[in-house]
Amino acid sequence: MQQTALAGTGVLLTGTTPLLANNFNSNKTIMKENIKSKGYAAFDATGTLKPWEFERRPVGDNDILIDIKFASICHSDIHQMKGHWGPQQYPQIPGHEIVGIVEAVGKNVTKFKIGDRAGVGCMVDSCMECDSCMHGEEHFCEKGETVFTYGYPEASSPTGISQGGYASNIVVRDHFAVHIPEHISLQEAAPLLCAGITTYSPLMKAQFKIGDKVGVAGIGGLGHLAIKLAVSKGAEVYAFTTSPGKVADIKSWGVKEVIVVDESFGSMNVFAKKLDYMICTIPYQFNSAPYIACVKPNGHFTYVGMPNGFELTFSNINLAATRVNFNASLIGGIPETQEVVHYCADNGIRPDIQMISAEQINDAWEKVVNKEARYRYVIDAATF
Amino acid sequence: MQQTALAGTGVLLTGTTPLLANNFNSNKTIMKENIKSKGYAAFDATGTLKPWEFERRPVGDNDILIDIKFASICHSDIHQMKGHWGPQQYPQIPGHEIVGIVEAVGKNVTKFKIGDRAGVGCMVDSCMECDSCMHGEEHFCEKGETVFTYGYPEASSPTGISQGGYASNIVVRDHFAVHIPEHISLQEAAPLLCAGITTYSPLMKAQFKIGDKVGVAGIGGLGHLAIKLAVSKGAEVYAFTTSPGKVADIKSWGVKEVIVVDESFGSMNVFAKKLDYMICTIPYQFNSAPYIACVKPNGHFTYVGMPNGFELTFSNINLAATRVNFNASLIGGIPETQEVVHYCADNGIRPDIQMISAEQINDAWEKVVNKEARYRYVIDAATF
Ligand SMILES: [Zn+2]
Ligand SMILES: [Zn+2]
Ligand SMILES: [Zn+2]
Ligand SMILES: [Zn+2]
Repeated sequence: MQQTALAGTGVLLTGTTPLLANNFNSNKTIMKENIKSKGYAAFDATGTLKPWEFERRPVGDNDILIDIKFASICHSDIHQMKGHWGPQQYPQIPGHEIVGIVEAVGKNVTKFKIGDRAGVGCMVDSCMECDSCMHGEEHFCEKGETVFTYGYPEASSPTGISQGGYASNIVVRDHFAVHIPEHISLQEAAPLLCAGITTYSPLMKAQFKIGDKVGVAGIGGLGHLAIKLAVSKGAEVYAFTTSPGKVADIKSWGVKEVIVVDESFGSMNVFAKKLDYMICTIPYQFNSAPYIACVKPNGHFTYVGMPNGFELTFSNINLAATRVNFNASLIGGIPETQEVVHYCADNGIRPDIQMISAEQINDAWEKVVNKEARYRYVIDAATF
Repeated sequence: MQQTALAGTGVLLTGTTPLLANNFNSNKTIMKENIKSKGYAAFDATGTLKPWEFERRPVGDNDILIDIKFASICHSDIHQMKGHWGPQQYPQIPGHEIVGIVEAVGKNVTKFKIGDRAGVGCMVDSCMECDSCMHGEEHFCEKGETVFTYGYPEASSPTGISQGGYASNIVVRDHFAVHIPEHISLQEAAPLLCAGITTYSPLMKAQFKIGDKVGVAGIGGLGHLAIKLAVSKGAEVYAFTTSPGKVADIKSWGVKEVIVVDESFGSMNVFAKKLDYMICTIPYQFNSAPYIACVKPNGHFTYVGMPNGFELTFSNINLAATRVNFNASLIGGIPETQEVVHYCADNGIRPDIQMISAEQINDAWEKVVNKEARYRYVIDAATF
C-alpha cells in the first residue's frame, strides 16, 4: 500500500470519508482489514432502497480504493434489483456509473496514484489472462470470470457478491478503473461509464461514414448519449421516441429529425429502409419489427436494451423481409471505456444530468421507469 | 398465344397431358378458357393430400403454360398446408419446386418457346415495376404484390388463390420461370427451385472466402444442398445434425466434419467461436443459442427455417455475448434462382433425391417430418 501520501491529502479525506479515515489513521496492519462503506441497498425484489452499512475487501496489491463522489442511475440497476433478470442476493448495492478520487493504491499499482480522478463502470474484475481479457474485451472473459459491478459472486467480497456504486467508496482492481480527465466534471463523467460505453462501442463497430443516416430508438440515458455521440461522429441522426415531451430536448442535440412513435407505429412507415444503421436502447420488451424495418437491406441493427428475462421474440419472416442483420451488444471493454471518456471530455459531449441526494433515489427510480428522467440522475455520494 | 407449333409437338402432348390436350385441339378462342389441371391438394389443416381436379387461368399474353414433369417436396409445403403459418384456404395444391416442359406461351413471351425445359420456384408474380422487382428481388416487391406459388390471393386464378406444383401443369408469368439447362436432369433440378436458391442466396451474400469455416445446421433438403454448395465454393464445411444416421451421407459430400448434436448440445462446445459463418435450416422452433455461439465474434448467422408461427425467441444477453450478427433469409430473386440452377448444372451439384408417385406423397410427408427423407422426395407428375 502506497499510503504514505494519504495522511497529507486533507482535501481527499476531509468530510466525506469519516469511515475510511478510521482505516488509515494508525498503521499499515489495519489496512489489511475490511474497508467500511455505506450506501443504499435493495433488501428484496421490491427494489426499495434503504441505507445500509457494509464492508468492502481490504485494498489488495492490485487494487485501488476510490472515494466515490458521484454515482448515476442506470435502468439496469432497477431491472436487476427487482429480479427482472433472475433472483438476487440481498442486501445488494446497485450502481455501475461511478466516479471519485483514488484514496489508496495497492503496492503493485502503477496505473493510478492517490488523488487521481477515477471511474468504474459495469465490471470490476476478470481473469486478465485469456484472449478476450488480453485484447480489451474483459466483459467477454473466456473463462467466464468477468465480475460485474454488483450482485456477482465474488469470493473477496465480505458479502460474497460484488457491491456497486451507490455507496461512499469502492475497492476495485486497478485495471477496471479508468482515468477521468480534468476537463470534464466528475458528475458529467459518471454516465459515460455505462450509458456512454454501451452506446459508443456498437456505434464505433458499425463504422458508419460521415453523413450516414443513423437511427437511435429509445431516448433515455443511453439513447441521449447515443445521439450525442453519433452526431459528434458526423452521422445524420434520426431519433425515435415515444415521449412527445422529449422532442425539444432531442432537437437541441443536433439530430436531423425526431420521430414520435405511437402504438400504431404509423409515423415510422416513411422511414422504411431509410437508415444505414440503427441502435435501439429500449429497456423492455417491445415490437422490434417496425424499428428493424427502418434499416436499409443488408444494414445492421444493434439492440442494447436488456428486457425482463433477457428475452426478445422475433417474427422470423419479418426479419427476413428486411434483410437486416440483428445483433445485441453488452457494454464494452476497459480500453474502449477509457476511450469514450476521453472522447467525450475532448469533444464537449456531456450527458444531460439531474443531481439528486441519496434519499431521492427511490423517487428517481420511479421516474426512470415512467420515462420522466431528463436524462440521467446523478447521486451526490456525500449524502450517503 | 404462339400455339401454332403446339399441334405438331407430339412429344410434348403425348400421354401425360390428356386434360391439356382438350384445350388445344380446336382453335384459338378455346385458349381463352381456363386450363384444366389435376393434382394433389390439402382439404383442411390435417394436411392430408387427396387427388383434386381444378382449373388454372387461361394463358395470358405474358404467361407460359408448363407441362409439369416433376415436383419435389419442401418442408414448407407441410407447414403451410397444416396451417402452421396461419389459416389457409382449401382446397390448396402445395409445391414450389416445379419442373417441366413449356407447352404454350403468350404472345408477348420471348423468354421461352414451346418445348423449353422450365422451372418454377416459390413465386409466380409481382408488380415488376418497383425498385426491388426491377433489381431481381421480386420476393421483396415494394408494393407487396409478390404472389407466392400456392395459397396466395390471386385474382386471375379461378380458385382465387395461387395453386402450386403438385399438379399436372401450371400457368405462370414468364419472368417467374427459369430455364433448366440440358445437362441436369429435370428431377434433379426440381429441388434447386426452393432448397437450392434458399441456401445459395445467403451463402453468396455471406461472401465467405476459400477455406473459410462454414457451418450448416439441420441437414435435410435445404441443409444438404447448402453443404454441397458451400463445399463447391471452397468452404471448409462443418455439418451439424441431430440424426446420427445421416453421418455417412454427409461425409460423402466433402465436409470437413460432421457434428451429431444431442439434447445437451455438448458436442458443440468445442466449436464455440470457430466458424466464420453459419447457415441454419432447422424448420422448427429450436434453441438457437448453442448454434449461434459457434460463429466467431462479428461473424454472421443466417436462419432460413420458417418455424411454426414464424416466431423465434432469443436470449438477448446470449446473443450479445456471441457478438454475432443474426439475419433471416427468404428464398431469393428470379435472376439468382436462374444462377443457382446454372451453377449446379455446370458444377456437378446434384441433390440426393428419392422418386415417388402421387399416392406416396402423404407417406413421404410423414417421413419428412420424422427426418427420414434422404434428402428430397421428387414426385413424378405423370402419376397425378
Ligand atoms: Zn448500465
Ligand atoms: Zn479472461
Ligand atoms: Zn420450399
Ligand atoms: Zn414490385
